[in-house]
Amino acid sequence: MPKKPFRVGMIGYGFMGRAHSNAYRQVGQFFPSNHQVVLKAACARNKDAIQAFADQWGYESIETDWRKLVERPDIDAVDICTPNNLHCEIALAAAANKKMILCEKPLAMNAEEGRKMVQAVEAAGVANIVWYNYRRVPAVTLAKQLVAEGRLGKIFHYRAKFLQDWTISPELPQGGNGLWRLDAAVAGSGVSGDLLAHCIDTAVWLNGRMSNVCAMTETFIKERKHQETGQVQKVTIDDACTFFGTFENGSLANFESTRYARGHKALYTLEINGENASIAWDLHDLQRLQYFDHRTESKLRGWSSIHVTDSDHPYMGKWWVPGLAVGYDTSFTHQVADFLEGIEQGNPAGPTFRDAMDTQVVLDAILTSAKSKQWVNVDKA
Amino acid sequence: MPKKPFRVGMIGYGFMGRAHSNAYRQVGQFFPSNHQVVLKAACARNKDAIQAFADQWGYESIETDWRKLVERPDIDAVDICTPNNLHCEIALAAAANKKMILCEKPLAMNAEEGRKMVQAVEAAGVANIVWYNYRRVPAVTLAKQLVAEGRLGKIFHYRAKFLQDWTISPELPQGGNGLWRLDAAVAGSGVSGDLLAHCIDTAVWLNGRMSNVCAMTETFIKERKHQETGQVQKVTIDDACTFFGTFENGSLANFESTRYARGHKALYTLEINGENASIAWDLHDLQRLQYFDHRTESKLRGWSSIHVTDSDHPYMGKWWVPGLAVGYDTSFTHQVADFLEGIEQGNPAGPTFRDAMDTQVVLDAILTSAKSKQWVNVDKA
Amino acid sequence: MPKKPFRVGMIGYGFMGRAHSNAYRQVGQFFPSNHQVVLKAACARNKDAIQAFADQWGYESIETDWRKLVERPDIDAVDICTPNNLHCEIALAAAANKKMILCEKPLAMNAEEGRKMVQAVEAAGVANIVWYNYRRVPAVTLAKQLVAEGRLGKIFHYRAKFLQDWTISPELPQGGNGLWRLDAAVAGSGVSGDLLAHCIDTAVWLNGRMSNVCAMTETFIKERKHQETGQVQKVTIDDACTFFGTFENGSLANFESTRYARGHKALYTLEINGENASIAWDLHDLQRLQYFDHRTESKLRGWSSIHVTDSDHPYMGKWWVPGLAVGYDTSFTHQVADFLEGIEQGNPAGPTFRDAMDTQVVLDAILTSAKSKQWVNVDKA
Amino acid sequence: MPKKPFRVGMIGYGFMGRAHSNAYRQVGQFFPSNHQVVLKAACARNKDAIQAFADQWGYESIETDWRKLVERPDIDAVDICTPNNLHCEIALAAAANKKMILCEKPLAMNAEEGRKMVQAVEAAGVANIVWYNYRRVPAVTLAKQLVAEGRLGKIFHYRAKFLQDWTISPELPQGGNGLWRLDAAVAGSGVSGDLLAHCIDTAVWLNGRMSNVCAMTETFIKERKHQETGQVQKVTIDDACTFFGTFENGSLANFESTRYARGHKALYTLEINGENASIAWDLHDLQRLQYFDHRTESKLRGWSSIHVTDSDHPYMGKWWVPGLAVGYDTSFTHQVADFLEGIEQGNPAGPTFRDAMDTQVVLDAILTSAKSKQWVNVDKA
Repeated sequence: MPKKPFRVGMIGYGFMGRAHSNAYRQVGQFFPSNHQVVLKAACARNKDAIQAFADQWGYESIETDWRKLVERPDIDAVDICTPNNLHCEIALAAAANKKMILCEKPLAMNAEEGRKMVQAVEAAGVANIVWYNYRRVPAVTLAKQLVAEGRLGKIFHYRAKFLQDWTISPELPQGGNGLWRLDAAVAGSGVSGDLLAHCIDTAVWLNGRMSNVCAMTETFIKERKHQETGQVQKVTIDDACTFFGTFENGSLANFESTRYARGHKALYTLEINGENASIAWDLHDLQRLQYFDHRTESKLRGWSSIHVTDSDHPYMGKWWVPGLAVGYDTSFTHQVADFLEGIEQGNPAGPTFRDAMDTQVVLDAILTSAKSKQWVNVDKA
Repeated sequence: MPKKPFRVGMIGYGFMGRAHSNAYRQVGQFFPSNHQVVLKAACARNKDAIQAFADQWGYESIETDWRKLVERPDIDAVDICTPNNLHCEIALAAAANKKMILCEKPLAMNAEEGRKMVQAVEAAGVANIVWYNYRRVPAVTLAKQLVAEGRLGKIFHYRAKFLQDWTISPELPQGGNGLWRLDAAVAGSGVSGDLLAHCIDTAVWLNGRMSNVCAMTETFIKERKHQETGQVQKVTIDDACTFFGTFENGSLANFESTRYARGHKALYTLEINGENASIAWDLHDLQRLQYFDHRTESKLRGWSSIHVTDSDHPYMGKWWVPGLAVGYDTSFTHQVADFLEGIEQGNPAGPTFRDAMDTQVVLDAILTSAKSKQWVNVDKA
Repeated sequence: MPKKPFRVGMIGYGFMGRAHSNAYRQVGQFFPSNHQVVLKAACARNKDAIQAFADQWGYESIETDWRKLVERPDIDAVDICTPNNLHCEIALAAAANKKMILCEKPLAMNAEEGRKMVQAVEAAGVANIVWYNYRRVPAVTLAKQLVAEGRLGKIFHYRAKFLQDWTISPELPQGGNGLWRLDAAVAGSGVSGDLLAHCIDTAVWLNGRMSNVCAMTETFIKERKHQETGQVQKVTIDDACTFFGTFENGSLANFESTRYARGHKALYTLEINGENASIAWDLHDLQRLQYFDHRTESKLRGWSSIHVTDSDHPYMGKWWVPGLAVGYDTSFTHQVADFLEGIEQGNPAGPTFRDAMDTQVVLDAILTSAKSKQWVNVDKA
Repeated sequence: MPKKPFRVGMIGYGFMGRAHSNAYRQVGQFFPSNHQVVLKAACARNKDAIQAFADQWGYESIETDWRKLVERPDIDAVDICTPNNLHCEIALAAAANKKMILCEKPLAMNAEEGRKMVQAVEAAGVANIVWYNYRRVPAVTLAKQLVAEGRLGKIFHYRAKFLQDWTISPELPQGGNGLWRLDAAVAGSGVSGDLLAHCIDTAVWLNGRMSNVCAMTETFIKERKHQETGQVQKVTIDDACTFFGTFENGSLANFESTRYARGHKALYTLEINGENASIAWDLHDLQRLQYFDHRTESKLRGWSSIHVTDSDHPYMGKWWVPGLAVGYDTSFTHQVADFLEGIEQGNPAGPTFRDAMDTQVVLDAILTSAKSKQWVNVDKA
C-alpha cells in the first residue's frame, strides 16, 4: 500500500530549522507509519541562505515570502521556526489556509496572541502541535509514565532549573542574526520565554496546572551594542528569572533560569518529590532518570540511576540496543512520529496549541509578578 | 609547660550534646594547643538521663538546674545545647557570670532576642561563638578560601537547599522529647530556623549580607498529635520554606528547605556562580568540592570533583592520609580547635553572636515575607 | 559544482546494517563534502527481508547473492555487515573488483585471514576501513587529541572493560538469527572478538601496540540449545575474557570483558594513567570525558568531567549547540564523514585493514594464551 | 556494675598507631560495653617520640623495648603497629605471655610466618584479630549482609582495585621513617602486601577462598636513594600488581593495585556480579553502596546509590542521624567494638589470625606467579 504524503513547508532555517528537518528525515526509518514525509519547501527572506539550506536538507523548493508558502496547495503542514514575534501572524494565515501547523515554542509572545492562535486552529480544524520537545526525551517520557501510574503518591514539590552561561560577556551584542533571543521586541522575553517555557511545559504535563506565582527577574548587563544598528542600547530581556508558587494539586513550585550560571551549558533539571517516590532528571545526562522509591526495603533505599536505553523504555525499542544512548535530536524525531501517528488515528498528539496555553499563562503571570513585585494568580488558559 | 584548662559546662544532652562532647574529646589529639579541654559538668533537668550522659562522655559532675551550672566558678565556658527557646535566657545569665559561651544555632528565637545576647556577651567581654558547624567542613572551608582569593569574580547567583524527608508521615507526633523541632513555641519556626539558618549562615559568610527577600512557606500536615499531651493540635511550624532575594553584592539568592523531599535525608547543597568560576557542594558527599573554572583552556573545561582529603586542604593535614574521608563530626572538632586557637591569640573565631545576627535578621525577614506575601527588606543586624 | 556520487552496496541488514545506513543518510546534512552518498543496493539471502530493509532505508535495489553485488559496476564501495566468518571471502572478492571496502569489526576470524585481506586491498589499491566506531565518539576523539598533544607524559597503565549482562539466562539459545554471536563457528570467538576487539582497537590507537599478553577465558553456561537445529550443543565461545600484558611503550594493560556482569548493558570503560595526567571514559555516559591533570594547583586538583558538547570539541561544531548530546549513532556518521574526506584528499582515514591487524594479532594471542595458560608474545601485525 | 578494664599496650606510633588509638578512645562513647579501654602503655625505640605520642593520646606509660611491653602484667592486649617484618616475632612473644593480640595487616611477611603466628595464638588460647579495617566500613558490612542473605545468586565476577599515585616521582627516596613501605626487606612486598592484601581480605570474606591465580608485577622506578643510607639502591618492591584467577565458588577474579595511577589517592574499589544482583563500592565515596537488582521491574532497573547512613545500616544507629557521614576512622572503632563484644561473649570477632591466612596464601601465590610467569594454585591456608 503506498504511503500518504506529508508535505512539509518549513519557515526558518536556524538551529530549530535544522533540528526539525533532521527529524523529518529520520522518522521514516525508525518509526515507519502510513505517512511519508516529503520536504516540499523551505522559506526565508534571504534567498541564497534558504537555497543553501534547502539543498543541504533536501527540500524540493524554496520561497522567500512566508505568505506564499502557506498558500501553496502542495503543502500539508507548515512548520514555524521563525523568531517568536512572527508565530501568531503566520499561524493565523496557515490555519486560514487549512494547513496543519507545527509551531516552535513558546507558542506566542503572550497569552493574548496565543488565544488567537488556539481559536484559529480550532476553527480551521487543523492538527496543531508546539515543539516542546523535551516531553519526548525517553527519560522524561518515562517520568510521565511513572507519574501517570500513580507511583509518586501525593506530590509535595516540583523543582526545575534551566541554567546556561553564554551571555556573561558584556561584549556580546544583542539582536540580529543568531542573537534575536537577546532582543525583547523579537523574542518577547529573555530566559523566561526561552528556557522557563520548557520547564513549565514539562511541569504542567507532569504535575498539572499552576495556580499562582511570585517571580523575580534580573538583567545583569544593562546595555549592549545592537548587532545590526551598531548602537549601544538598553537590554530589555530578563537575564535571569526565578519564581515560586503553587500547583493546583497543592504542591510547591521552585523554578529558576539564567544565562549567567558559569559552568552550565544547557542544564535543564527537574525534580518531583512525592509522598512515596521522587524523580529527577537533567539534560546534560539526558539518557538517565533518577528514581527513589520509599517503598523499597529500608536498608536498600537509594536513588536509582536508570539508563533509559532498554527496549521497553519509551521510544527506545526503535533505536539501537540496550546501553546505547540516543541524542538530543531524537526528541524531535519522536515528536514527528507521534504527530504522524496521531493524525493517522484522528487523535492528535500534544502539546497542542491549547495545551501550550497552560504554559503561556504562567509566563504572563511571571512577568507581571516580577514587574509588580507581587504574587499573581495564573489566568485561565 | 602545663596546658591551660578549658573547663566546659554542657547544658543539654541530645544529638548536639553528643556532637559537641565528641569534639571536645577529640580536639586535643588532632589539634593540640595550649589548652586542655576538661569536661567539667553536664546539665539537664532529668537527673538519671544527665548522669548517664555524663558517665558515657566523661563529664566530671552533673547539674539539674542550668542556673547553678552557669554560676559555678570551676566552669570556663558554657555550651548551650538546649531547644531554641532557652538560648537567650541562658546566654544572658552565662555572660553575667563572665563565662565564655558556645551556643547552638540558630542563635535565638528572633533578632530581638539575638540583639540582647550580642549586647550581653560584648558587655561582658566574653568569647562567644555559634555552632554553625558547616563552615568547618573542609570542602566548605576550601570554598571560602577560593572565594576570598577572588577566583570567582563578580558573583551572579547563590543557590542553596536543605532537603529532608523525615516528617512526611501524618502519624509522626509533634513536640516533646526528640520532636521539639516540630513545636513552634519551642523551636521558634520549622525548617527556616532549623535548616535554612545553616544555608544562610554559610551564604553570608561566603557571599556577604542579604538586602531583601521574598518568601513562601507551607505546612503540609495541618494537625498532629502532641507527644506529651496526646491531643491533636494545629501544626504551626513551616514544613517547607522557599525564598529568593538579593545580596548586597548584587547577586541573586534562591533558597529552599523542606522536610517533604522524599529521598533526601539531609541534603544541604550550595552553589555559587561567578563571572570566572563556580563552586558547588553538598552534604551527602561532604568530602568533595565541585569547581568549574572558565579560565581553563576551552576544550578541557569541566566541573572538577575535588576530593578534599589532601594535606594542604583545610584541616586535613591533621587527620589521616590523602583519600581518606573524615566524618560530619569533625566539623565540630574543627570549630573547637579554632575557638581554642582564637582565645589563645586574643582573636576569637567566628561566627560570633554578632556574626550570627546576619542570619537572624534574614530569618525574621523570611517569616515576615511569607506571612505578608510581600517583599521585605532585611533589617540591619 | 555537482557532487561526486559515492554508491554504496550494503551486505547484511542487522543491527550494524541499520547503524551504517543511518550514517550514510545523515552524513551529507551535517558534514557536507564533495561526495554524495547514494544507497545503491542492499544484499542478503532472504529476499523479502532485504527488500523491506531496502525500502525502509532507501536503497535503490537489492541483491540476494553478495557475489553479484560486488561485481556490479554501479557500486563504488562495499559495506560488509555480515557475520564474521564471511568478512574475508567477501573482502577478497570486493577488492578483486576494485571496490572500496568498509568492513565491520573484527576484521577477520583470525590474523591469518586478516593478512590476506590486507594484501588484497593493498594490491588492489582500494580505500578500506574497519568499523571500529568508538574511535569517533567525540569524547574518545578528544582523548586521542590529549594523548597526541603529550599531555599525559609517560604512560603507566591502560585499563579497559566491556561489560554486558545479556546472556546470563541458560534458556537463551545459541546460533542463528540475531544470536550468531554465540556461535563460535560463525563469530570466531565470544566476547574477545565481539567486545574486547573494540577495547583493543581504541587502546592501540591511543597507546600503541602491545608486546605480550596473558589471558583467562571462561564459558559459564556449558551447553545451550541451538536456535536453528533445536539441539542442545556445547557452547564454544568465551563468555568472559580477562587479560593483562604490556604495551610496547612499557605501560601495563588490564582488560576484561564479559556478558555476565549483571547491571551493565554495554559498559565499555577505559582509563589511561600517565605521569602527568589521566583520562577516563565510559560508553554509558559517552558524552563525557574525565580528565585529571596533576599540574593543576595542588588544592584544586580533581577529576574534571568534560561535557564534550562544545563547538571546539571533535565533530561537535557540526551538530547542535553546547550542552546538547549526540547519540551513539553519530560515531558511524563521523566515520563516513572522515572516510569521504579521506578519499577526497587521497589520504584514507583509518583504521584501515592494516591498522586493524594490530588488534587482530592481540586477539589471536589472547585466545592462544587462554588455551595454553601461558604468556604469549603478540605477533607482528 | 564496674566495667572490666581492657588494658592496651601499643607498639608503634605511626599512621596506624594513631588510627588505632583514636578507635580505643572513641569506642566507649559510641559502643558502650562491659569493658573499659585503658591506654596503658605505648612502645617504640625512640623515647622522645613515643613519649610525645603517649602524651598526645593519653597512654599512661611508655616502653622503648617491645619485649618489656609484652611481658608487663598490667597489659591485657598487645597492638602490633610495627612494620611488617616484626609482626611475627612480637606476636609469638605476646602469645607466649598470654596477651590478646591485635595485629596490623598483612598478618605476616609470608604464609610460613603466618602459620607460626596462628599456631602460637591458638596454642596460647588468646583472642586475636588482624586490622583488616575495611570489613567494617558500614557500606562494606552492608555488602556482606546482602551477600549472606543470598541476594546476589550465583556469583560470576569479583573485581577489585586499589589505586594510588604517591610514588610516581623518581625523587622519592625509599626506606626509613615513613617510607618503609618502599623497602622490601621491611615490608615484604610493595602494593601486593600493602594494598592488595585489603582487597583480598574483603574478597575472601564476601566471596570465599581463591583456588588459583596468575599475576604480573612491575617496578617502574628501578632505583631510588635510600633515605637512611643516602645510597642509590635497587628497588625490589612491586610498584604495581595485577592478577586474575578463580574463586572456589567458580567466580572469576580480576584484581589490580598500583601506586602509579595518577589522580587516585586511595581508590579501593570492589564490584561483585551475581546472577540476580550486583554490588559496587569505593573508598573515595565510602558512605555509599551501589546496588543493582535484576528482579526489579524491568523499566525501573538501575544502579541504586545507597547512602549508608540510616539507623538500620550496620553500626550507623550508634553515630549521628540519617544523611550524616562518618569517617574512615570509624572502621577501626567498629573493629574494637566488635572485638570487645566478642571477648565478652566468648565468641571472638574476625578476621582472626587464622582467617587472615586465607589472604596470606593468596599473596604468596601472587608473588610466586609473578616471578615464574605461571599460573599458581593457592595453598591451603
